[in-house]
Amino acid sequence: MRILVVNVNTTESITEAIAKQARAVASPGTEIVGLTPFFGAESVEGNFESYLAAIAVMDRVMAYDQPFDAVIQAGYGEHGREGLQELLNVPVVDITEAAASTAMFLGHAYSVVTTLDRTVPLIEDRLKLAGLYQRCASVRASGMAVLELEEDPLRAMEAIVRQAELAISEDKAEVICLGCGGMAGLDEQIRYRTGVPVVDGVTSAVTIAEGLVRLGLSTSKIRTYATPRPKKVIGWPGKFGH
Amino acid sequence: MRILVVNVNTTESITEAIAKQARAVASPGTEIVGLTPFFGAESVEGNFESYLAAIAVMDRVMAYDQPFDAVIQAGYGEHGREGLQELLNVPVVDITEAAASTAMFLGHAYSVVTTLDRTVPLIEDRLKLAGLYQRCASVRASGMAVLELEEDPLRAMEAIVRQAELAISEDKAEVICLGCGGMAGLDEQIRYRTGVPVVDGVTSAVTIAEGLVRLGLSTSKIRTYATPRPKKVIGWPGKFGH
Amino acid sequence: MRILVVNVNTTESITEAIAKQARAVASPGTEIVGLTPFFGAESVEGNFESYLAAIAVMDRVMAYDQPFDAVIQAGYGEHGREGLQELLNVPVVDITEAAASTAMFLGHAYSVVTTLDRTVPLIEDRLKLAGLYQRCASVRASGMAVLELEEDPLRAMEAIVRQAELAISEDKAEVICLGCGGMAGLDEQIRYRTGVPVVDGVTSAVTIAEGLVRLGLSTSKIRTYATPRPKKVIGWPGKFGH
Amino acid sequence: MRILVVNVNTTESITEAIAKQARAVASPGTEIVGLTPFFGAESVEGNFESYLAAIAVMDRVMAYDQPFDAVIQAGYGEHGREGLQELLNVPVVDITEAAASTAMFLGHAYSVVTTLDRTVPLIEDRLKLAGLYQRCASVRASGMAVLELEEDPLRAMEAIVRQAELAISEDKAEVICLGCGGMAGLDEQIRYRTGVPVVDGVTSAVTIAEGLVRLGLSTSKIRTYATPRPKKVIGWPGKFGH
Amino acid sequence: MRILVVNVNTTESITEAIAKQARAVASPGTEIVGLTPFFGAESVEGNFESYLAAIAVMDRVMAYDQPFDAVIQAGYGEHGREGLQELLNVPVVDITEAAASTAMFLGHAYSVVTTLDRTVPLIEDRLKLAGLYQRCASVRASGMAVLELEEDPLRAMEAIVRQAELAISEDKAEVICLGCGGMAGLDEQIRYRTGVPVVDGVTSAVTIAEGLVRLGLSTSKIRTYATPRPKKVIGWPGKFGH
Amino acid sequence: MRILVVNVNTTESITEAIAKQARAVASPGTEIVGLTPFFGAESVEGNFESYLAAIAVMDRVMAYDQPFDAVIQAGYGEHGREGLQELLNVPVVDITEAAASTAMFLGHAYSVVTTLDRTVPLIEDRLKLAGLYQRCASVRASGMAVLELEEDPLRAMEAIVRQAELAISEDKAEVICLGCGGMAGLDEQIRYRTGVPVVDGVTSAVTIAEGLVRLGLSTSKIRTYATPRPKKVIGWPGKFGH
Repeated sequence: MRILVVNVNTTESITEAIAKQARAVASPGTEIVGLTPFFGAESVEGNFESYLAAIAVMDRVMAYDQPFDAVIQAGYGEHGREGLQELLNVPVVDITEAAASTAMFLGHAYSVVTTLDRTVPLIEDRLKLAGLYQRCASVRASGMAVLELEEDPLRAMEAIVRQAELAISEDKAEVICLGCGGMAGLDEQIRYRTGVPVVDGVTSAVTIAEGLVRLGLSTSKIRTYATPRPKKVIGWPGKFGH
Repeated sequence: MRILVVNVNTTESITEAIAKQARAVASPGTEIVGLTPFFGAESVEGNFESYLAAIAVMDRVMAYDQPFDAVIQAGYGEHGREGLQELLNVPVVDITEAAASTAMFLGHAYSVVTTLDRTVPLIEDRLKLAGLYQRCASVRASGMAVLELEEDPLRAMEAIVRQAELAISEDKAEVICLGCGGMAGLDEQIRYRTGVPVVDGVTSAVTIAEGLVRLGLSTSKIRTYATPRPKKVIGWPGKFGH
Repeated sequence: MRILVVNVNTTESITEAIAKQARAVASPGTEIVGLTPFFGAESVEGNFESYLAAIAVMDRVMAYDQPFDAVIQAGYGEHGREGLQELLNVPVVDITEAAASTAMFLGHAYSVVTTLDRTVPLIEDRLKLAGLYQRCASVRASGMAVLELEEDPLRAMEAIVRQAELAISEDKAEVICLGCGGMAGLDEQIRYRTGVPVVDGVTSAVTIAEGLVRLGLSTSKIRTYATPRPKKVIGWPGKFGH
Repeated sequence: MRILVVNVNTTESITEAIAKQARAVASPGTEIVGLTPFFGAESVEGNFESYLAAIAVMDRVMAYDQPFDAVIQAGYGEHGREGLQELLNVPVVDITEAAASTAMFLGHAYSVVTTLDRTVPLIEDRLKLAGLYQRCASVRASGMAVLELEEDPLRAMEAIVRQAELAISEDKAEVICLGCGGMAGLDEQIRYRTGVPVVDGVTSAVTIAEGLVRLGLSTSKIRTYATPRPKKVIGWPGKFGH
Repeated sequence: MRILVVNVNTTESITEAIAKQARAVASPGTEIVGLTPFFGAESVEGNFESYLAAIAVMDRVMAYDQPFDAVIQAGYGEHGREGLQELLNVPVVDITEAAASTAMFLGHAYSVVTTLDRTVPLIEDRLKLAGLYQRCASVRASGMAVLELEEDPLRAMEAIVRQAELAISEDKAEVICLGCGGMAGLDEQIRYRTGVPVVDGVTSAVTIAEGLVRLGLSTSKIRTYATPRPKKVIGWPGKFGH
Repeated sequence: MRILVVNVNTTESITEAIAKQARAVASPGTEIVGLTPFFGAESVEGNFESYLAAIAVMDRVMAYDQPFDAVIQAGYGEHGREGLQELLNVPVVDITEAAASTAMFLGHAYSVVTTLDRTVPLIEDRLKLAGLYQRCASVRASGMAVLELEEDPLRAMEAIVRQAELAISEDKAEVICLGCGGMAGLDEQIRYRTGVPVVDGVTSAVTIAEGLVRLGLSTSKIRTYATPRPKKVIGWPGKFGH
C-alpha cells in the first residue's frame, strides 16, 4: 500500500518531519511518500495561504505519476480536502478530521492546541463543517508560528503544554489534539507532561487511511464528490506554478 | 464609488450579464467594473472548480491596478471570500451571503434554487459557516448546468419556477434566492410567477456593498482577516495563469 | 423615498437623535421621518416595556397618514417587528437585526454592547429567533440605563468602550454593535478607541431599508406575515393611548 | 389556591370553555378564575393580534383586584408571558410551554396540531425560545380557524385527527399536543382515535401551576424577569382599552 | 394514588430521606413508597454505577407486587428511565428532567449544582438527550461525594451555596437545581442564601407525577417505549442480585 | 494484539458471525476473541434489552481472564460503552460510532439502515451524544428483526437495499452504514447494489481499535471515564448471571 502524505506548505524540512512521523506508525508493507507542493507559502497561517495551499496540494497530487492508495492532507484547518476527493478515486484523509475523529474515541471532550491565534477560526470552521465540533472543548493558540516550532522547539513545547493544561483545567478537555502538521513528534512528551492522551494528526491519519484501504472503502462519487464534469479549465493542470 | 464585481468562472458573457445586472441597481455615482478571472473553469459546479475559482478571483482582483471601494464575489456557494478579506482593506461581499442576508429581512424562511444537485452541499455548507442557514428552508437544484442557463433560458425558467414552487409549498419558504450568478435578471419573472419576493445575489450585493462604503465600514483586521504575515510565497502573485 | 424611523420609547430627544443619525447616512432624495409613540415607557429596558412598545410602535405607524416606503423600528432587542410586517406592505427593518446582519459582513464574530444587564437576554432571544446569533460572540451590558446615555455621555462612552474591549479580548469579537438606539452617534469614537469596526443599528438600518426599496423588495405576504384576517378587534386602532 | 386562567382573545364563550376545562382537573381547594381581556381580537391568529393580546392579558391581570396564586396564559404560541413574569410575584404558566413540557414526559417526540397555517411559525418560534423545540416532531395546521372550532366541532375534530395521524406516521410523533386554547375538551376523543397520549395545554398548565404553588416556587426576579424599573409610562395601566 | 420513589443506590438512609421529602409535598391521598434496589453501588457517581443502577431500578420496580400509579427514578443524571418506560404502563418521571422542566418555568436559565466533577458530563448528556439543555447555564460540581452529603451536611451546604453563587454571577443562572437525590431537603436554605428559586428533583417530580396521573396521561407505547417484544431473556427478572 | 469483540445479545451464532467478520479484516498478528454475554436477551431491540446488555457486556469482559489490548462493543445503538471505558485501561470502540466515524471520511452525509423501527430513536440518540449525528442524513428501519436477518437473509437483503436506496434518493445519503451487528457480511453486496460505499460497524471498529493500539492511545482517565471510586457494590461482579 502506498500513501501520499502531502504537506500544505513549501518547507521541505516540514515535509520530511511529517513523513518520518507517518512512517513510524505505518504498517509493514505501507510505503509513505512525502510530497511538497510546487507553489504556495512557506507556512500556512490564514485563509489566503490556505486557499492557495488547497490548489497547490491538488496540483502536487495530480502531478504524482505513480499509483497510490490513499492521500493524507497534512495541514491543520486547511481548505481543499473536498477538491481532492472529487479528483481522486482513492480515500483522502485530512489530519484535522483524523485527529478529532480519533480523539472522540478517547475522551468525552477534546481540545486542539495550534499555532497562531489567527488560525483558530479556520480550524473551528473546518471542524464545524466536518461535523466534528460538538465535542470540541476549545481550540487554543500557543502563539508560536509554524516555522518557530522548528526554530525553537523548547519554547514551543512549553507554550503548547501551557495551553494544553488550560484546556484541561478550564475547558474540561480530556484529550489534546496537536493542531499543526509541524507539531509531529511532540505528542509523547506532551502526553507525559499533561497526563491525558495526545493525538497527532499525521499519525492518526495514517492509521485511518490504512484502515479505509484495508476495508476496500473510498470516497462516494454519487453527489458531493463526483468527478468534475468535463469542461474547459484554463490554467490547470500543469499550467502554473511549475 | 467603484465596485469590482468578479465573476468566478472564465465565461465572459456571464461576467457581462452580471455587470449589467449590477449596474441596473447601482446608485448614481457608483461605477461597476466587471472582472473575469484569468484562469479557472468556464463554469463552477463543484469543489475543485470552486477552490480554483477562489484563487483565480483573488488573483484577478490583485491584478486590478486602479483604486476601488468594494469587491463583490459573484459566485453562489463558492469558496474564497475569506482570502480576499485578508488581502484587501475594502469590504468584500459574497453574493451567497448577500442574498441570504437580504431574504431574511423579507420572510420567515427562504429557499435557494440553484443549478446542479452536486452544488447543493457546497451552498449549504457556505451558508452554515456564514451563520445564515438557520432560516434556510431548503436549497434546491433546478438540474440546469450554469452554461445551460444561457443556452436554454426558457427551459431554465421553467425548471427554476418549478423548484421555487416546491420550496414554497413543501419546504415553507416565503422568499426565493436565485442560487447562481448566471441567473441574474430572472428575478422579476420568477417573482411574478410565484408571488413571493425573489432575491438576486448580485443586485442585493450591490446595495449591501454600497451601504458598507457609505457607512465607512470595512473588514475587521484584528484576527481572522488580518493581513497575511510577510513570508515567502512561491508562485503568487502574477506567477501563474497569466 | 420616505423612511419612517420609529423610536420605541416616548422620549422625544432620543427620537431626534435617532432621526439625525439616520439623516446623516441617508441617500440624497431619501426623507427620514422620526416618529415617537403616543404611549409607552420613557425608556425600554425589559419585557413589559418592550411588549408595550411593540404595540405603541404599530399604533404610531398606523396613525401616520402620509405615504412611506419603509419603516425602521429603532429599538434594540425589542418585540414587535413581526406585527408591523403583517400590517404593512413596505419593508420593515429592525435595528437589532440590521446591525447584526451588517456586522456579519465585516468580521468572523461580533458582540453587542448594550445598556442594562436585564436587557441582555431579550437581545439574545431576538437574535436567536432572527437566525443571527451563531456568530454572536457575546451580548454585554455597559450598566448604563438608556436615559443615562444622554445624561452622562462621557461615563457612557467609557463604560461602552470597556465592555467592547472585553468583548474583543475575552469573547473574540471582531466587530462591535451598539446595542441601543440611544447610542446613535457614538460609533466613530468607539471605533477609534477599539480599532475594530463599530456598527450602529440605526444607520445600518437606513442603508438596508434603502437597498430593499431600490431592489423593489418587500415582506413576503404568503404565510407568516400575511395581512391579518378581517375580524372584530376591540380597542384598536386609535382607541387607546391617544 | 386561586389560579387566574386568562384567555388571549375577547370571545367570552372561549373563556368559559377554558375555565371549565381547567376546573375539571383542578385539585379540591383550587379556585379557577377565567378572565377575558378588555381589548384585543376576537381570536388570535397572527403576530399583530398576538402582540396586542400580550398587552391585553397583562392589562386584564393587573386590573384583577383580588389576591391570586398563579396565572395561566391560555394562548397557544402567543407572546407576552415574559412581561407578566416581570409584573407579578406569582408563577406564570403559558399553555404552549405547559403542553410541550408535559408531552416530553410521555414520549420521545411530540407534535402540535394547531389552527391555521399562519400560526405555525409563531408556535415554533415560541417553543424554540422556550428551549422545548428539540423533541418537537412537527407543528401542523388543521386549517380550522379558532372560531370555527366552536362553530363546526365535528369538522374540526376530523381535521385535527387527520393531522395528528400524519404527525404520528410521517413525523414520528409519539404524543400530540392540542395547539389552541379553544381545543380544550377534545383531548379524550383524539386520544381514542389516534392511540397516543393527547396533551391539552390548559389542563396541563393547571397541574403545573398547582405544583409550583405547592412547592413554594415562583419566578426568579434576579435578572430577566426583575420587576420593571420605576419610570414614566404613558398610557399604562388603565389608560387604554377600558 | 400510589407513587413509587426509587433510589438509585443501595443506601437505605438516602431512600428514607428521599421518601420523606416526597411525602412532604405529596397531595392528601397520595401514598409515597420508597424503594431501595436489591443490588448496585452504595452511591452512584459514574457511568458503570449508573448503568448498574438502571438495571437495579428496573429490577426493584418489577419486583414490587402491589399496584401503583407512577414511578419516580430518584437519581440525578442516571441512566435507565427509558427502560422503565418500556416495562410499565404508568408514567415514569426522572428527577433530572423533573427539576430542569420545573426550573424552566421559573427563570430564563438554570444551573445544576451536583456532587463530584466526574458526574457533570453524565448530567449534561442526560439533559441534552432529554431536550432540556438549551436553557441550562451550567452544571457545576460541589466536590462533595454523595455519601459526604449525609456525613458532613454543613460543609456540603457551604460547597453547594458557593457553586450556586458562581452559577448566578458567572453563568447567569436565574434558578438553581439541586443535582443529587441525596440533596433532598436543602432547597429551602439554599434559596434563602442565594435569593433565587431552588428546585429539588424529588419534590418537583412528585408534583409532575401526580399531575400526569390526574390528567390520565401515561407513556406513549407507539414506538420508542413500546413494550419489549416477547423473547428469550436469560438472567432476568429475578435471576440475579436477590 | 488481542481484541475482544463482544456481542450484545446471547445468540452464539451471531457472536460467531461477528467474530468471523472481524477476523477477515484484522491485521496479521491480531487475534480476535468473540465473546457472548452470560445473560441478557437473545436479540437487543429496545431500551430495556439494551440497558441489560450494557451490564452483561461489562460483566462478560470483566470475566475474561486473559490480557487484551482493546474491546469492541458489537451492538448498534446500544448503551454501555461509557461504563466499559471506566472499568478498563484499554481502548473501547463501539460499532455505532466506528461506522459513523468511518462513513464521515467517505461522503458528505451518511445514513444508517437498521432493523426495527423501535430501535431508530436509540441509534439517533447514541449518535447525537457521540457528536456524530450532524452529517447523518437519516436512520431507517428495514423492518427486519435481528433474528430474522439470519433466518431469512434474502428478504433481509432486499429490505435493506430498499431502505438504502431511499436514503440515497430521498435523504441524500452518500454512504450507508449497516445498523446492526447481525448484518455483518452484507456490505459487499449492498455496495454492489446501491453504488455507494457501505460501512459495516464491526470491520470498521477493528481497523479503528487496531489503529488506537498502534498509536499507543487509550481512554483518558482524567474525568468522565476515570476508574470507579472504591465503594461497596452489591451484586457485582460475579454475583449474577453466571
